[in-house]
Amino acid sequence: MDNWLPTLITATPTEGYELAVKMSRVAVKMTQGDAAMRDKLRPDYAENADSLIAVSDVVAHHFATVAAANNYWRD
Amino acid sequence: MDNWLPTLITATPTEGYELAVKMSRVAVKMTQGDAAMRDKLRPDYAENADSLIAVSDVVAHHFATVAAANNYWRD
Amino acid sequence: MDNWLPTLITATPTEGYELAVKMSRVAVKMTQGDAAMRDKLRPDYAENADSLIAVSDVVAHHFATVAAANNYWRD
Amino acid sequence: MDNWLPTLITATPTEGYELAVKMSRVAVKMTQGDAAMRDKLRPDYAENADSLIAVSDVVAHHFATVAAANNYWRD
Amino acid sequence: MDNWLPTLITATPTEGYELAVKMSRVAVKMTQGDAAMRDKLRPDYAENADSLIAVSDVVAHHFATVAAANNYWRD
Amino acid sequence: MDNWLPTLITATPTEGYELAVKMSRVAVKMTQGDAAMRDKLRPDYAENADSLIAVSDVVAHHFATVAAANNYWRD
Repeated sequence: MDNWLPTLITATPTEGYELAVKMSRVAVKMTQGDAAMRDKLRPDYAENADSLIAVSDVVAHHFATVAAANNYWRD
Repeated sequence: MDNWLPTLITATPTEGYELAVKMSRVAVKMTQGDAAMRDKLRPDYAENADSLIAVSDVVAHHFATVAAANNYWRD
Repeated sequence: MDNWLPTLITATPTEGYELAVKMSRVAVKMTQGDAAMRDKLRPDYAENADSLIAVSDVVAHHFATVAAANNYWRD
Repeated sequence: MDNWLPTLITATPTEGYELAVKMSRVAVKMTQGDAAMRDKLRPDYAENADSLIAVSDVVAHHFATVAAANNYWRD
Repeated sequence: MDNWLPTLITATPTEGYELAVKMSRVAVKMTQGDAAMRDKLRPDYAENADSLIAVSDVVAHHFATVAAANNYWRD
Repeated sequence: MDNWLPTLITATPTEGYELAVKMSRVAVKMTQGDAAMRDKLRPDYAENADSLIAVSDVVAHHFATVAAANNYWRD
């Protein structure tokens, strides 16, 4: 993959959250490289409450890292 | 989405907790953009003990980040 | 809700742990606002080993935050 | 409950780990107060690989907190 | 195993993420040492949405550690 | 048990990772003290993709602690 994650620094918490969502998806792509298979699996999680909660948890973990990297946008 | 998360700073831990709940929900909306589908899924987690515990776990993760951002409201 | 979480500071680790238990429960109440439904769901987790372990995990996450807020009660 | 957790400080990492195990169990007791029910549930997790892994995860979370409290026993 | 993890330092966040993916896989290899069995299990997670989300969560945890080690590549 | 965890300090990240694997296993032993039962359960997780991912997650949590204890082996 190209240099898809050049920095953890974002201008705002909102952008940091969007980055966390992206980060949560890349590991899936690196584990299941077939885009057609990923598309096929999409309803399995997008229409399943527990899967959506699990997705949100991964985002929370990445957001914690991004937030720390940005010193919580306090500066 | 608009700039829904302009800051992690809140006046009190209670408000920080409410922000963490909001943060846990946004990732779900970003993954399942169809509001009607989300409404349909609501009973699947709101009436399921394990799902509610999982929701609480995501909130705990986001609250940890918000609390650190606010220096634990110690200042 | 009222200002149910005015501070993360507690006198002892024991009280911090009790606060963490309270914090783990509030997200459930905020997601399932119907007390009767919550009562109905209680056996589903209180009599299920995996659910109890999951509850304990949420408490662990909140306790980590409370402990950091209190500087691990080292002062 | 009495003051069962007076301090997070332990003499060694081994004792800190034992404390983390204790901390993981107390939340279960606080959620399911009936000792007979807890005894009944014991085989459900003690003879189930996934449950044992989940228990280990809770211990890992508490150990992280205890280790930080003890400054990783580096002093 | 040889010294497969000589350092947590990487040049970029992208490389740090790749390291986190590697770190998430090694524990699996250390638990299931039989490569043929691991190959057999691959479809079980690579074609399962919940498994892929779980993989992503492990990566998130390791990435947090790698990011902290690199001071979030802020220097 | 004897003093199985005298220190969190290791010479390299690789050794720190091996320690994290050990730490993830001890909680299982402390919860299920019967070695024969543990052996019986081994195929349940070693031949199950989701269980192996869960094991890897516990290792990730312990590795985070060990890495922090070692100041990420940056010194």
